[in-house]
Amino acid sequence: MPSSDAPAPEIFKPLDPAPRLLMGPGPVNVYPSVLHAMATPMLGQFDPQFTAYMNEVMVLYRQVFQTKNQWTLLINGTARAGIEACLTSMITPGDKVLVLNFGRFGHLLTEISERCGATVVTLDTAWGTVFEADQVRDAIKQHRPQIVATVHGDTSTTMAQPLAEIGAACREFDALLYVDATATLGGMEIDVDGWQLDAVTSGLQKCLSGPPGSSPITINQRIVDVVMRRKHIEEGIRPAGYQAADGQRIQSNYFDLPMLLDYWGPQRLNHHTESTSMLYAARECARVILSQGLQTTFARHKQASTALRAGLRAMGLELYGDENHRMDNVTGVHIPSAVDSDKVRAEMLVDFGIEIGTSFGSLHGVIWRIGTMGYVCSKPNILRCISALEAALRRNGYVAPPGAAVDAVYGVYDGKK
Amino acid sequence: MPSSDAPAPEIFKPLDPAPRLLMGPGPVNVYPSVLHAMATPMLGQFDPQFTAYMNEVMVLYRQVFQTKNQWTLLINGTARAGIEACLTSMITPGDKVLVLNFGRFGHLLTEISERCGATVVTLDTAWGTVFEADQVRDAIKQHRPQIVATVHGDTSTTMAQPLAEIGAACREFDALLYVDATATLGGMEIDVDGWQLDAVTSGLQKCLSGPPGSSPITINQRIVDVVMRRKHIEEGIRPAGYQAADGQRIQSNYFDLPMLLDYWGPQRLNHHTESTSMLYAARECARVILSQGLQTTFARHKQASTALRAGLRAMGLELYGDENHRMDNVTGVHIPSAVDSDKVRAEMLVDFGIEIGTSFGSLHGVIWRIGTMGYVCSKPNILRCISALEAALRRNGYVAPPGAAVDAVYGVYDGKK
Repeated sequence: MPSSDAPAPEIFKPLDPAPRLLMGPGPVNVYPSVLHAMATPMLGQFDPQFTAYMNEVMVLYRQVFQTKNQWTLLINGTARAGIEACLTSMITPGDKVLVLNFGRFGHLLTEISERCGATVVTLDTAWGTVFEADQVRDAIKQHRPQIVATVHGDTSTTMAQPLAEIGAACREFDALLYVDATATLGGMEIDVDGWQLDAVTSGLQKCLSGPPGSSPITINQRIVDVVMRRKHIEEGIRPAGYQAADGQRIQSNYFDLPMLLDYWGPQRLNHHTESTSMLYAARECARVILSQGLQTTFARHKQASTALRAGLRAMGLELYGDENHRMDNVTGVHIPSAVDSDKVRAEMLVDFGIEIGTSFGSLHGVIWRIGTMGYVCSKPNILRCISALEAALRRNGYVAPPGAAVDAVYGVYDGKK
Repeated sequence: MPSSDAPAPEIFKPLDPAPRLLMGPGPVNVYPSVLHAMATPMLGQFDPQFTAYMNEVMVLYRQVFQTKNQWTLLINGTARAGIEACLTSMITPGDKVLVLNFGRFGHLLTEISERCGATVVTLDTAWGTVFEADQVRDAIKQHRPQIVATVHGDTSTTMAQPLAEIGAACREFDALLYVDATATLGGMEIDVDGWQLDAVTSGLQKCLSGPPGSSPITINQRIVDVVMRRKHIEEGIRPAGYQAADGQRIQSNYFDLPMLLDYWGPQRLNHHTESTSMLYAARECARVILSQGLQTTFARHKQASTALRAGLRAMGLELYGDENHRMDNVTGVHIPSAVDSDKVRAEMLVDFGIEIGTSFGSLHGVIWRIGTMGYVCSKPNILRCISALEAALRRNGYVAPPGAAVDAVYGVYDGKK
């Protein structure tokens, strides 16, 4: 026990950060109504008011995911918690997983699948490109994996993998298709049912414009059938007469999907204590985007990226990657060789209050990544970013044609492109 | 793509729950300043303002845990995420784990340890009791486990296991000691360094009076040494010349402590995207409790429980469990046989706006659990709960001596007990 002459505690000041416009690859600025929602008082996890909110979240995210899947719910963790919950529940050790690897998050899917005991084969392509449907089908036919895992939009390369034909290829060869849509859900079309995506996971902190820390997921009956064969309810809460399923117990308790379904389902079998405030946030994120309309929102993201890219090109900058497969919500742009990349980013941040993104691995120091997601995705923010970047570049020795970038952005918004 | 005549989205109403006083075993009501903190705008995860907040959180929680441990940080998930992060990183498959099992959460530690590949032996005792230090030492001596795992306060039984002598016994036989302090941190003394606890995890939603969804943990150098032997940085972010450690790769990526230390440490190696709003909440929870003073807070919890228990006894109700080892923040009380347990709880909730807890397993329908944690732990709330319970019991056929319970609560607060 500390003595009575213990030093005074060090408690720091209340939170009061300088405001930032977050135009990196995420997290991004949160809708004001989402911030307000998080300040809603607590409820007990089995309070009928709270379980009703949980059910509403399921209804809301079915619409966001464009699916009829009953099991559409939240994993209590950041986006990679949702990835791991699906993969660790889907992969029985020894299963073969085919990963479509076109960026850093393909590596992550490989990594997590291996930790779940899978034998992983990867289909690889140069960063900045994606796969043709035939390549994927051929690889499935060759390797006959139990599971195909892919990212939809990989922010590390700013590329989006077309998915519409991959689901059918998976059905043809009886593979399950897992898709990491962290960076695209709410920003680009994802037709979960139409494209036959079996399991899809996301995060709040990109186009849904919520805080990181909650991962919406949806799984269809094909996934439920597989994971239920491994259902082992934890000790201490087993109902009378309980018998575990025959399949190998899932290696994580926290990420055990069958137990999570019992918690989100009418049984309400206790598991974790649902993250109340994050559920409030997730609920409000979905309400905002559905109120705006999904197709309207997708179109806004596409227009903003088009405007941003027109502005960047008008500054004489070169865009990164395959122009036919760019994500609609993040743009890679080559850093002019004349400037100090970190210095420009620091001046954007401190002097203009705008965060743009650096890059990973071989792209570090080569491209910046500029996000236009959710609440951030608006004409004023595109103009603000482009103007600041032109100024910051000029102060650092790269002089673009004055005003050309702003004019190009206006051109897109005015329909004169 | 949905057709243009798609039905209007179902978006429900904004959040507006009827207020509840949460006097169950958690979650509990959140400090107003914590609700405000969560409404603070976002920052990028590598913004110097945000990494400074992360460092402040480490300083704050060292004080809350009463430790000098450098590695004192947050796991991005609910309390059991913290448990699983420690156990999955500490346990190499094949290790022997001794679990001190005195309630539902002993079962959980068993369950998680087994999923991590441990051979688990349990030391068991009847619910409502705890272990003597000698029993624990003897079991360690007999089984020679690599790890001893125990809950500090198990809300399922409302019992608190004394820990002061167990750390020494673990050192004597070279075992690591893991403690789940979810339900006690901030409500009862936990002298992490003085008691030689090697790894301790918690959650925000009990005596720290924050929302569920963030798990503060602290680990000492003995734990760091063990988990670092298993360090495998994920593909895609490995530094040049990287060589993995010899030990077996940890089976979870999300809960990989060595990678989490690189993210929280000066390397700032990317892992998940830290849950911004939950970190804000955790920071503010610690600021509140440290401002109040830990010892003052512990005394407040003890006094409130004493008052509540005096009130319950004055109603003629019987308290549950070993009176020498009750937690200071949750009380088990036998349900009078004359009343319908669920009906009384429902009336407490709906008519009086007060949530009290039901129980698990063999105690379901036998005891209620009444929590007095954090912001909830105050004289007005004890009086409000006791008054409501007396009224609800009377309406359901159990008539206590009128006013005696309130008088007994006043008696404790007036020092006339």
